[in-house]
Amino acid sequence: MDAPGPAPYSTVSFLSDFGLADEFVGVVKSVIHGRAPGTTIVDLTHEVPPHDVRAGGLTLARAIQYVAEGVVLAVVDPGVGTERRAVGVEVAEGRAVLIGPDNGLLAPAVSLTGGADRAVALTNPDLQLPAPGATFAARDVFAPAAAHLCAGGALDDLGERIDPAGLVPGMLPLPRVEDGEVVCEVLWVDRFGNAQLNVGPEDVEELGDSLSVRWGDGEVRTARRAGAYGELGTGELGLVIDSYGLLALSLDRASAAATLGVGAGDEVRLVEPT
Amino acid sequence: MDAPGPAPYSTVSFLSDFGLADEFVGVVKSVIHGRAPGTTIVDLTHEVPPHDVRAGGLTLARAIQYVAEGVVLAVVDPGVGTERRAVGVEVAEGRAVLIGPDNGLLAPAVSLTGGADRAVALTNPDLQLPAPGATFAARDVFAPAAAHLCAGGALDDLGERIDPAGLVPGMLPLPRVEDGEVVCEVLWVDRFGNAQLNVGPEDVEELGDSLSVRWGDGEVRTARRAGAYGELGTGELGLVIDSYGLLALSLDRASAAATLGVGAGDEVRLVEPT
Amino acid sequence: MDAPGPAPYSTVSFLSDFGLADEFVGVVKSVIHGRAPGTTIVDLTHEVPPHDVRAGGLTLARAIQYVAEGVVLAVVDPGVGTERRAVGVEVAEGRAVLIGPDNGLLAPAVSLTGGADRAVALTNPDLQLPAPGATFAARDVFAPAAAHLCAGGALDDLGERIDPAGLVPGMLPLPRVEDGEVVCEVLWVDRFGNAQLNVGPEDVEELGDSLSVRWGDGEVRTARRAGAYGELGTGELGLVIDSYGLLALSLDRASAAATLGVGAGDEVRLVEPT
Repeated sequence: MDAPGPAPYSTVSFLSDFGLADEFVGVVKSVIHGRAPGTTIVDLTHEVPPHDVRAGGLTLARAIQYVAEGVVLAVVDPGVGTERRAVGVEVAEGRAVLIGPDNGLLAPAVSLTGGADRAVALTNPDLQLPAPGATFAARDVFAPAAAHLCAGGALDDLGERIDPAGLVPGMLPLPRVEDGEVVCEVLWVDRFGNAQLNVGPEDVEELGDSLSVRWGDGEVRTARRAGAYGELGTGELGLVIDSYGLLALSLDRASAAATLGVGAGDEVRLVEPT
Repeated sequence: MDAPGPAPYSTVSFLSDFGLADEFVGVVKSVIHGRAPGTTIVDLTHEVPPHDVRAGGLTLARAIQYVAEGVVLAVVDPGVGTERRAVGVEVAEGRAVLIGPDNGLLAPAVSLTGGADRAVALTNPDLQLPAPGATFAARDVFAPAAAHLCAGGALDDLGERIDPAGLVPGMLPLPRVEDGEVVCEVLWVDRFGNAQLNVGPEDVEELGDSLSVRWGDGEVRTARRAGAYGELGTGELGLVIDSYGLLALSLDRASAAATLGVGAGDEVRLVEPT
Repeated sequence: MDAPGPAPYSTVSFLSDFGLADEFVGVVKSVIHGRAPGTTIVDLTHEVPPHDVRAGGLTLARAIQYVAEGVVLAVVDPGVGTERRAVGVEVAEGRAVLIGPDNGLLAPAVSLTGGADRAVALTNPDLQLPAPGATFAARDVFAPAAAHLCAGGALDDLGERIDPAGLVPGMLPLPRVEDGEVVCEVLWVDRFGNAQLNVGPEDVEELGDSLSVRWGDGEVRTARRAGAYGELGTGELGLVIDSYGLLALSLDRASAAATLGVGAGDEVRLVEPT
């Protein structure tokens, strides 16, 4: 055991690809409440597409600056039960510990919070649930670890220290300029059909207020930069500065992603209008 | 600052059209918990159809008599970032404050709780989050306002008083009688396919226990009044007094709405059987 | 009133087939919070298929060993408003009370926790909400009962004692051996497409590590026993010991249920490979 850390954490912010149709999320919460009564658990989302580590990592990265101090429990874990490590990563001078699989899921959020202060592998069997099968680490490994921290336990109790530099990195696609075109990628399509690109307004400043969007099999459309969806006319494509400061292809009260036929990971090019 | 109000609110009841696939709901809750630790947040629903202010207003109206005292946070906000006002409306002698956009969403609930005692526009930038874009007022404006009230802050801190009479009204469709027919509207189709009409049993008392239902392109079917779904025979159409005291077109263990092909907003006529 | 029971319960674990699109779940929680402030409510799931008592009972049975001490509120209730009883069932020497309709939903969980210590019918109108219709017992009957227990009230206040032996039993399908084949049933298909069978590894030990799976209209495929999804090759069918100790038909990062075309309740036969 190391020296006592700061006051126990009181909040677990929880993200997964478990969906809400099964009892997975409820069972994880039950384990936490049973071992650390009074903990506040905040669902970030559980509808990350199954096994989609990239989408989960981006979602966590968007949310991380707003989550309360405490434990962040993130589970998108196709390799559950295999050699992949289960880890706890302390960031921001102990204001948060991220718990999850070491598969790149946590990496963007760790990076955005200033990098890992220290990290442990969750290998202490005394702080895990015995289980007949190895397929539900969130219940058997991650939840008891989160509860341990919320009950005032130390990070080092959970397992041996590991080198934060050895954690699996996350991949955040960067835009590039090619023949005067800004080559972007759709990071995320939200419920309303806004297609967030990996560029901010400063990246396309020179292209003017109205620019050409090229995507797919040679499709082209003009988009106007706007500050709100409601500034757009009916059917008018916009490039709206979204709530994270990135540009999103948007329509007013309609789905830009469905209209254009673009999804997460697709390439989109922004060009001066012709 | 005005004089201190009643004891701080401890509960936020939260309704939106955000869905649960993105991190929107979790981020709003994180902001509230971060600024007012210990607050209980109750999700009413987040699956209001995107941008459907009418459906959101009806949902809130159904729930309002049951919600705990405290803050009601309701966000269906297609005009986010435009001129539409963000407001806080105190009702029921301070037992609740409704927070959301001034677009008619709050109006039916405000009316059902006896009308607005006082209202403010949420214009105080010191009680908002700085944001790179204007598209997520729930996170940047409404959540900090809710947290402020739960942390014991005064309504008047949030911005200048506005005249409650100037709030955008909500539209609740009323039934009418036409040529002996009661012309109704489907207010809501629930998960089980019950189609709630905007009439109570007293509105059709004279039509008897069995009556003709007319809808769509001249379709007609007989419905029997019943007190429970299980009183209906297999495939028998019922007019069941639902949990809000209104009549709902229902089948036993099957979707009346899907079977009849009706949805929210559709006209349905109730007539004496021929 | 009987003698005071143990310390009041502080947690309600809540399962239903209400879905999250309507305000049903939120209203039930509001009633509980209004009558027993400070109660922790844990959602197990609300996406049990509508009216599917069997699926709800199996889900509750899977979760029950992990739920926190306190009240378990379970509602899949196609007979709401009819003669079916509303009950409270105390189990595990008072560590939990299960509340719901007496239609078999609670039975598997009651059985797994060692059987009912005592049971009451929820007939005391003073501990129910007045309601214009009889279709929402979760709000009007079950939630006030749960809140009563969490506020320190006695089980016997809720209504008259009933004989636990008279509770409607649940049906758990058992596997059988027929001509050397282990005849199983798919109990559950989870979000990831794993098809849980009603057999454990000990039931098929003699069939070896690789065995034939027969289902549907004469379809056959070989499956290999594995400890984790990630041990399977791409497209290789596995029989993985799942987190509840049962065998599940699984693929690595793909849906076995969709690939094979099997669903809950379907028969699957396990045989020695030919």
